[in-house]
Amino acid sequence: MSIPSATPPATPSADAGSARPGQIMAREIAEQPAVLQRVLDEGAPHILGVARAIAARGPRFVLLTARGTSDNAALYAKYLVEVVLGRPAGLTSMSTTTVYGAEPDLRDCLVIAVSQSGGSPDLVASTRSAREAGAITLAVTNNAGSPLAAVSEYHIDVLAGPEKALPATKTYTAELLSLYLLVEGLRGSDGGAARVVPELASSLLARREEVRALAERYRFAQRLVLTSRGYGYPTAREAALKLMETTYIPALAFSGADLLHGPLAMVDSASPVIAVVPDGRGGDALRPVLERLRGQGADLAVIGQRDQVDTAPAGFVLPGGVAEEVQPILEILPLQLLAHEVTVARGQDPDAPRALAKVTETH
Amino acid sequence: MSIPSATPPATPSADAGSARPGQIMAREIAEQPAVLQRVLDEGAPHILGVARAIAARGPRFVLLTARGTSDNAALYAKYLVEVVLGRPAGLTSMSTTTVYGAEPDLRDCLVIAVSQSGGSPDLVASTRSAREAGAITLAVTNNAGSPLAAVSEYHIDVLAGPEKALPATKTYTAELLSLYLLVEGLRGSDGGAARVVPELASSLLARREEVRALAERYRFAQRLVLTSRGYGYPTAREAALKLMETTYIPALAFSGADLLHGPLAMVDSASPVIAVVPDGRGGDALRPVLERLRGQGADLAVIGQRDQVDTAPAGFVLPGGVAEEVQPILEILPLQLLAHEVTVARGQDPDAPRALAKVTETH
Repeated sequence: MSIPSATPPATPSADAGSARPGQIMAREIAEQPAVLQRVLDEGAPHILGVARAIAARGPRFVLLTARGTSDNAALYAKYLVEVVLGRPAGLTSMSTTTVYGAEPDLRDCLVIAVSQSGGSPDLVASTRSAREAGAITLAVTNNAGSPLAAVSEYHIDVLAGPEKALPATKTYTAELLSLYLLVEGLRGSDGGAARVVPELASSLLARREEVRALAERYRFAQRLVLTSRGYGYPTAREAALKLMETTYIPALAFSGADLLHGPLAMVDSASPVIAVVPDGRGGDALRPVLERLRGQGADLAVIGQRDQVDTAPAGFVLPGGVAEEVQPILEILPLQLLAHEVTVARGQDPDAPRALAKVTETH
Repeated sequence: MSIPSATPPATPSADAGSARPGQIMAREIAEQPAVLQRVLDEGAPHILGVARAIAARGPRFVLLTARGTSDNAALYAKYLVEVVLGRPAGLTSMSTTTVYGAEPDLRDCLVIAVSQSGGSPDLVASTRSAREAGAITLAVTNNAGSPLAAVSEYHIDVLAGPEKALPATKTYTAELLSLYLLVEGLRGSDGGAARVVPELASSLLARREEVRALAERYRFAQRLVLTSRGYGYPTAREAALKLMETTYIPALAFSGADLLHGPLAMVDSASPVIAVVPDGRGGDALRPVLERLRGQGADLAVIGQRDQVDTAPAGFVLPGGVAEEVQPILEILPLQLLAHEVTVARGQDPDAPRALAKVTETH
């Protein structure tokens, strides 16, 4: 790989100095506008070419395989495949292949493996099996030289540059944008709605002080609940994962509909809820859930449009006028900052979560 | 419906009296051996007939749709479909149809909707759409007169009898067994490995005192982590849901592999972990995860075979010699009892979780 290092926008208060807690994560969060611009400028032509080649083979069913942060990117792609592309899709349970030796017939299936490192042995093994079982295989990774890229028929490099922080941030948004362009390409479009993303990302990340104020709210939280619907649900899941792995606060993510099927009982005035409210149909479908939460006295913070934020005691306003499918690339940014700020406020180091390794070797 | 009421085995210490907290849930937990026997005796011929009819149409992909407890049963069926049947499978995101109006091409797809009540409007709408889009549709419900049964081409009644407790218990295991028989039927087998289940279920449920002792451990827990792999993972998810909706303790379920990708950072000596260790390949794959958890000082309880339970400070021993695919129907039983006992120990009523309705109307 010879990916140029992105120049992070200046955020000296958090990134300067050499021994500040979380400076590696903060730097990679700040790199995202540049990474996203690079995906659009340098990555898009290859992604659209891969999409054309795959589309010509007419896959009927799409399976996505990933773990951790990349699994949330895969879930986002699943929504795109079902809604935008009109193809049935599923997230694979890797263990059915790697533990139980399942050998499903995968002709006419497109199998997309998403992984930052492209190095997890179970992902490599299940992708190899899928290819042998007749699937069209595509790896989406941040490492063109990885074993996963090697075993897959097609490869998309998300061009995020080396990611050194243990909590993945820039590779997540780079995966989202790459997958968006892929699905747009599969349906014969060019994904023009994403062109606004780098500049909006830059303006969101400049609002770190607002997030720092919000972080005070969760400094002593014992638990967090995140909720959303539709395209925002992967954001809720990724935010919960990011908050858990950095702050160690147990953070539960539910789609708004699932929250009403049981876990709502758990929410009371001591349970902060963060709702990601998409601007569009997903947000509309979430409103009855927000009303139930308010009725139950939940401490609600809204990440969404101004009118929705104003109905809650706390929140963060997102820019309007962005296509709903593209919003997840932006929604996660204040939540990445929040994970960083809450962790620092609790006296911990986001760059050194206990017990984590960058490439997780699951088999 | 004219389903005979099951006679629950006598568990007078918990079920007698008319105003004891949790008596409705306790009664339905206790009914499970009779319900499972009924599924085998009265349900199996119809289920195997449905399976034969569907198999003759040669579905290539299987999609499962459900929410809440039934979604965990659907996840179990997904493992069976992939491993036993060798067909790719996915859990659908209902909102893609009901919120975003997705119209995927579902020819050659079998769509299985799983629901206790068969009454949730979004499930009915998405199943109707699936049928119009060319799918073979099958409803698995506890209500043959339900709207979901009416819109589906095929219907399987799980014969659990009316479920009155808000936390679903007997409908979950009845769904598991019905789905097991279905998949066995789809591959031309009769599911004989399940014949041992009712008697083993009965002997497990007789061990309530052991569970009561285990429940003391979690009386003041601030959070719980549940983990498993393979066929045991749906059990971990269902146990987490059951514990959350009754005790209100935030309970997070992770596959062992996903736990290593981030959330492990959250686990310390103040974080009780309950591991469901299947007797078979899933359990073997979980062992490295258990070692990591022990190394991190986690308070570990094991639900599994004697040799595994003996490696942990607490646990519950499951019977040996049961086919791994059938074990989930038994594994959940001590965890249902645990949810009930922890809730009662905390002075709450498992029959009256705040904020829950039996039929959740999500759209």
